[in-house]
Amino acid sequence: MHSLDCFFSPNSVAVVGATEKPGSVGRAVLENLRGFGGMVYPVNPKYSCLLGRPAFPRVAAVPGKVDLAVIVTPAPAVPGIVRECAGAGVKGAIIISAGFKESGAAGAALERQILGEARSAGMRIIGPNCLGVMAPHTGLNATFAAGAARPGSVAFLSQSGALGTAVLDWSLSENVGFSAFVSVGSMLDVGWGDLISFLGDDPATQSIVMYMESVGDARSFLSAARRVTLTKPIIVVKVGRTEAAARAAASHTGALTGSDEVLDAAFRRAGVLRVGAIEELFDMAEVLAKQPRPRGPRLAIVTNAGGPGALATDRLVASGGELAEFSPASMAALDQILPPCWSHGNPLDVLGDADAARFARAVEIAACDPGTDGVLAILTPQAMTDATLTARQIVASAARSDGKPILASWMGGACVEHGEAVLNGAGIPTFKYPDRAVSAFTHMWGYSASVSALDEIPAPSPGAQASGGRRGQAGEIVAAARRAGRTLLTGHESQQILAAYDIPVVETRVALSEDDAVAAAELIGFPVAVKLHSETITHKTEVSGVRLDIRGADAVRQAWRTMREDVLGKAGEGSFLGVVVQRMIAPGGYELILGSSLDPQFGPVLLFGAGGQLVEIFRDHALGLPPLTSVLARRMMERTRIYAALKGIRGRRPVDLPALEEILVRFSRLVGEQRWIREIEINPLLASSGQLLALDARVVVQPPGMREEQLPTLAMEG
Amino acid sequence: MHSLDCFFSPNSVAVVGATEKPGSVGRAVLENLRGFGGMVYPVNPKYSCLLGRPAFPRVAAVPGKVDLAVIVTPAPAVPGIVRECAGAGVKGAIIISAGFKESGAAGAALERQILGEARSAGMRIIGPNCLGVMAPHTGLNATFAAGAARPGSVAFLSQSGALGTAVLDWSLSENVGFSAFVSVGSMLDVGWGDLISFLGDDPATQSIVMYMESVGDARSFLSAARRVTLTKPIIVVKVGRTEAAARAAASHTGALTGSDEVLDAAFRRAGVLRVGAIEELFDMAEVLAKQPRPRGPRLAIVTNAGGPGALATDRLVASGGELAEFSPASMAALDQILPPCWSHGNPLDVLGDADAARFARAVEIAACDPGTDGVLAILTPQAMTDATLTARQIVASAARSDGKPILASWMGGACVEHGEAVLNGAGIPTFKYPDRAVSAFTHMWGYSASVSALDEIPAPSPGAQASGGRRGQAGEIVAAARRAGRTLLTGHESQQILAAYDIPVVETRVALSEDDAVAAAELIGFPVAVKLHSETITHKTEVSGVRLDIRGADAVRQAWRTMREDVLGKAGEGSFLGVVVQRMIAPGGYELILGSSLDPQFGPVLLFGAGGQLVEIFRDHALGLPPLTSVLARRMMERTRIYAALKGIRGRRPVDLPALEEILVRFSRLVGEQRWIREIEINPLLASSGQLLALDARVVVQPPGMREEQLPTLAMEG
Repeated sequence: MHSLDCFFSPNSVAVVGATEKPGSVGRAVLENLRGFGGMVYPVNPKYSCLLGRPAFPRVAAVPGKVDLAVIVTPAPAVPGIVRECAGAGVKGAIIISAGFKESGAAGAALERQILGEARSAGMRIIGPNCLGVMAPHTGLNATFAAGAARPGSVAFLSQSGALGTAVLDWSLSENVGFSAFVSVGSMLDVGWGDLISFLGDDPATQSIVMYMESVGDARSFLSAARRVTLTKPIIVVKVGRTEAAARAAASHTGALTGSDEVLDAAFRRAGVLRVGAIEELFDMAEVLAKQPRPRGPRLAIVTNAGGPGALATDRLVASGGELAEFSPASMAALDQILPPCWSHGNPLDVLGDADAARFARAVEIAACDPGTDGVLAILTPQAMTDATLTARQIVASAARSDGKPILASWMGGACVEHGEAVLNGAGIPTFKYPDRAVSAFTHMWGYSASVSALDEIPAPSPGAQASGGRRGQAGEIVAAARRAGRTLLTGHESQQILAAYDIPVVETRVALSEDDAVAAAELIGFPVAVKLHSETITHKTEVSGVRLDIRGADAVRQAWRTMREDVLGKAGEGSFLGVVVQRMIAPGGYELILGSSLDPQFGPVLLFGAGGQLVEIFRDHALGLPPLTSVLARRMMERTRIYAALKGIRGRRPVDLPALEEILVRFSRLVGEQRWIREIEINPLLASSGQLLALDARVVVQPPGMREEQLPTLAMEG
Repeated sequence: MHSLDCFFSPNSVAVVGATEKPGSVGRAVLENLRGFGGMVYPVNPKYSCLLGRPAFPRVAAVPGKVDLAVIVTPAPAVPGIVRECAGAGVKGAIIISAGFKESGAAGAALERQILGEARSAGMRIIGPNCLGVMAPHTGLNATFAAGAARPGSVAFLSQSGALGTAVLDWSLSENVGFSAFVSVGSMLDVGWGDLISFLGDDPATQSIVMYMESVGDARSFLSAARRVTLTKPIIVVKVGRTEAAARAAASHTGALTGSDEVLDAAFRRAGVLRVGAIEELFDMAEVLAKQPRPRGPRLAIVTNAGGPGALATDRLVASGGELAEFSPASMAALDQILPPCWSHGNPLDVLGDADAARFARAVEIAACDPGTDGVLAILTPQAMTDATLTARQIVASAARSDGKPILASWMGGACVEHGEAVLNGAGIPTFKYPDRAVSAFTHMWGYSASVSALDEIPAPSPGAQASGGRRGQAGEIVAAARRAGRTLLTGHESQQILAAYDIPVVETRVALSEDDAVAAAELIGFPVAVKLHSETITHKTEVSGVRLDIRGADAVRQAWRTMREDVLGKAGEGSFLGVVVQRMIAPGGYELILGSSLDPQFGPVLLFGAGGQLVEIFRDHALGLPPLTSVLARRMMERTRIYAALKGIRGRRPVDLPALEEILVRFSRLVGEQRWIREIEINPLLASSGQLLALDARVVVQPPGMREEQLPTLAMEG
């Protein structure tokens, strides 16, 4: 028995706060339970009978065993009711009542009481402040919604009750069915992770679609999703992109914590498909339940008209798919069945006079070509077109499609209606417009790609012992700074931490006096760069704290003096500790950024992308959750635009990508092991065909008062 | 009388090639003309009677006057028929027949004959290779489509007949009506410009929607669109984004000619609204016909549930709109009518228990706030919600909306159906999902903004005389290069052309010997930069043709020697003419690009954006058509991401934006006046708070064989 069984297949339900008052929630819930086959017990001390059923003053007074309580009383009464339920052996409660944490401190205190009662008795809670739960296959409708969901194979979880009512109303008109329909409310106890885990094992559920406002317990969500997405698609609309985007922060990496992009990275890592609109949610639930997942991004477009084919092509390329190229064998086979003036390529235009046989045969050839990962068939109702017969023959072709997804767009109204029904009946999803079909295909591929990346399991970090001095060496630098009451490491300390993890850094010496600076420069050899050494100033360019290409002792002295003056004038005596002298790096190559900071929900998050002064303008970066494998590191790199340059463009030689991957993997290990680091950023990480070099790094550590048990942990471990 | 009247309101129509053969195009056209009130004459020498009408052997044999001929005969017969029609005083012909230029050279020759016949007689032609024309208000259906369009206020023009059939079939199911329905075919004579111009004056047409595959006569299209969009929206789906994007070219600017982005720039300049999908085409036709245009991007969202409001907000920000902020007066008014726990901001959550009066009053307050440019009302059908009454009261509120657009999304199925009908009936467009409503709003604002920019009329270029030496000076450099048989100007020549138009260039001297180079450097003063001087090598960085920060005579000599060796090794003797010596520019500032090249359809096109070595990676640029005003120049700048940096970020001072505007305006004048320039690119144009400076320029001129009359002209002049 799963602890959530009581919500979806209880034998008996008590409605606490049931009434007959017209328009009341208590009455609506009681009425909605009419179709339920098990026992229903209205509980209300004021009545002995409600809507024809005997009523009981308290849950404890119910003669039979109660599996599930649905609570609709005012909020202040709820903790007592939950205690009573727990005492009576009730396994779960749906708290529909509002008036809890959303209404202030008193409500939040009530929630804590409820949770305490429930936890101590092992009772589970859905809500509070929710619409309720429907399990259409068991006839259970424990909600106050106007109407019951039809049975089907989609589990719908919504963090907005109102949106749930709209989806329900829409589903009744559109004939969409559900295996479960859950309004999660404020998720006091049962959250996304519990529900995903339960529905993952539910044989009636083929796909899980979610409307999400907040992620709740991130680790529970991620670990359940990772397991379930291997067999059932999870599709999410998550709102709130905007809110988070508005925040400002001191560093580029820091600005991303708590942002919507972190969530994207987490969803991708767990194999969850995120879509942007409610309509896509159900489109994708249908498509993924009916069709196999594509093994690549290459779509073949078979159409009886050029225009819609061009529309589909535009959308395909814009949404990250690829236009498949047909093999010579397929081209020859197509030449055999098509008139000479066919398009001779993809989109495959079978021409306006195509009959059903020609159209279906073309679909089959396209599906069986080794260069395609899926087929979209587009039909417009022209003079010679038989939309229904074409649909029938394509259904037959699809059976020989080599395990590839087939989608269709029968464009028009009455002329194509019957053909659409034929396709839908055979499990080929249809779309009113070809561009929407294409978006569905590229979403399928995105989902498919992230599910296949679930196999990437990073090697566990070796223990502190095994990794030798490395972890300890870096840890000691961090600890020393914290002991000194500092949270910002110097550039030199930051560099030593990177070096401990074999991340290449430029040769650097700290100089605390003018003479030291000259000596350091001479040891390194001219030309050198001279940079400010400070424990307080973090963005050196803002105080002209960087001098490049210095070619002699006099110039070193001059740099020391002007830099000192400038800092003293702008930031005061204490900000100037001296300078660091570095080997001058030849210009050329690309400036990258590699960083990590702590997300309040997901712990450490990695950032890789284009660096330099325009980092915030171009925002060309990808986020990922540590730890990384080299494959996951490459995937992160591939999601940036600058990756095209790193691969080599316009005759420039490529960067050593395997070495760069390795740097990302080591950096992710650093972040996982050095838990006292709050934020770390290498910018720029200089990358050219000859070298990879961290030129500048910035590390912020946890404040002295922080205790070890307060430190965030990796979201993806364990 | 307009020359296109014959197509939309003829008194008499001849069908040349009419037959009774079932399934034939000739029969379909004749049958479709049954509902037409004027005279219909079947023409076919084989029959004396067709479908109950007397038939005639030739157009000349028809007893009455023929306004319009619909020709469905095989292609080879068409030129003769057109000549005969011209002789008989027919004013226009719709050529449905296929087999012309799309089928090869012979077909193209037939087209030329047809055009010759028609032009000499002043007869107009629609087609060939089209579905035909419907004018529902006059009962004319001169197509072979299965069905007749309903009358309405939208004119639909399609370059794909097949897509036309799908749209027609869909429109019959969805009850959408048309003022005109035109399949344009291959646009031998009548093109977009003619049709837009005609429909712009047609009182039955409120909006024009187009499916476009190619732009045809760009000047005619732009000038008609510019005039008509002031009063009627023109909404276009244009396919083929992909095709053009695949082309490679030698320069960044050059890669854009013929590209889809040029078309975007042209559409924007003419006030045409481009959308990405067929469904948006009709959404926008409805919205723009029913609602006033917003005066800004700020939307107020009024909702009875938080979730859909959040969805709408995410889409608003993602699509370039802005969340309106309510004034203190509105906030106070809202506090009066809403429960204490309302959202106190935008989205304005009127809460789940809102009755119609509360909801409608909130919409009215939002609409009347001076800080809003439009309102979206979102309703979900909750327990207390009266979707129909709320719709009625919002209709009343909308009448007091201060001329701002009101959109609605009544989410759900049967529960909201009647409310939707109420809103639609009152001219408030409804959307199934709030995110689509938001996209419609941001499209409205985009359209509104480009229509208001139509007032920007650049001052005409002063004549060659008036502009003094400038035009002549630059022209002479170009002419000299062409006389010498060159098309690529040297860097120094390119710089002189810029200088002639007062575009600031860095102090530069050409040195043809090693000693000259040293002398030049000493004249300019160290440090200097030394760059390759070549008439053949265009991308200097590929041959290490750039040495920076040279601080002495020896270093100049060394630069000369290594550069010479490198070029000789890679490109041969002739490629090394010497070096140019430039004043060394202090590092810092942003690298911009400013360029122009010739688009085959639109003539010179301007490009502005982020420059430097990653120009092709970030593709951060905006295109525009010359000539520019300073307002149009600013608009171009605003469309780039780097604009945020130019305005000043992270404590860095802003660039002198008015001066930068002025450089764009001067550059656009240069491009307009120097018609022998084929391509010109400044990269980088260095921009910092203290200076704006063209560091490097590249100019390509027309080959020697080119004649003046072959030169492209500005698309936007005249």
